[in-house]
Amino acid sequence: MLVLGIDPGTATTGYGLVRESQDGSLHLVGYGVIQTPAGLEEEKRLLLLYHKLNELILLHAPNAGVVEKLFFRRNVTTAIGVGQARGVVLLALAQHGIPVWEYTPMEVKQSVSGYGNADKRQVQLMVQTLLNLEEYPKPDDAADALAVAICHLHHYRWKSFEKGSGR
Amino acid sequence: MLVLGIDPGTATTGYGLVRESQDGSLHLVGYGVIQTPAGLEEEKRLLLLYHKLNELILLHAPNAGVVEKLFFRRNVTTAIGVGQARGVVLLALAQHGIPVWEYTPMEVKQSVSGYGNADKRQVQLMVQTLLNLEEYPKPDDAADALAVAICHLHHYRWKSFEKGSGR
Repeated sequence: MLVLGIDPGTATTGYGLVRESQDGSLHLVGYGVIQTPAGLEEEKRLLLLYHKLNELILLHAPNAGVVEKLFFRRNVTTAIGVGQARGVVLLALAQHGIPVWEYTPMEVKQSVSGYGNADKRQVQLMVQTLLNLEEYPKPDDAADALAVAICHLHHYRWKSFEKGSGR
Repeated sequence: MLVLGIDPGTATTGYGLVRESQDGSLHLVGYGVIQTPAGLEEEKRLLLLYHKLNELILLHAPNAGVVEKLFFRRNVTTAIGVGQARGVVLLALAQHGIPVWEYTPMEVKQSVSGYGNADKRQVQLMVQTLLNLEEYPKPDDAADALAVAICHLHHYRWKSFEKGSGR
């Protein structure tokens, strides 16, 4: 089970790939950011993001794609930009027939660190621990993408367990 | 000069195709809406929108794509949804190498009806008149897409004129 977590943005999109082994242990496959130059037209930045995402999907063939559910309270201009990048991310996943899962920021924190109001540093430390890394994954967008991927693997496991125990 | 105006949305995306002849007259080539079923997953709705847009672009080969600049004051959830659809629209245009133009709602109203605070009915009536139609174009999303296409043709003409007169 290989999961691709994505934290979309026009300037910087974070991604993180996490594999769960048969024994339930988690392994880091890769992480990083896709960046697009600020000087480029909006539509060309989205095209560049789309190409890079396709490369990533073709290279790793993930079993699931995971993004955060978005709730903006302020800054609607940012919401449109993130929405545009998110639309391109969802499209690329759908084109490859990869199922998409969404979790709220609170669900991600809850799942990774044990409680929903954990701060950024605590989440990073838990991602580092769960993936057995020597350092925090950086930058933040990549760490957030890893967190959302881990969140899905935890939820997925619980769901399988619930199904199994119900038999 | 064939211009494709687009009014993006996840549920309904309006489009309008307007051609300007050599003599400067405007002609309606087509208009309508792309709708996606509410029951479908978000990413599949975006994929459907993307396929329909590609059909439209391949069929008509427009010289320019035009969308409204978005300024939301309220309702950020809507902004994300519209942003996602808008991202897919911009991507499809960029993939076909079609230049993208953006105008504010006020520029569109100003350009089509003569003043920036025109109401929806006045704009529809002007679109009807400029395109020599017997009725208002419907629904609103398609009419808005036609208005933004006309706005670009007006701006484009002014720009050509300014360039010409400067020689």
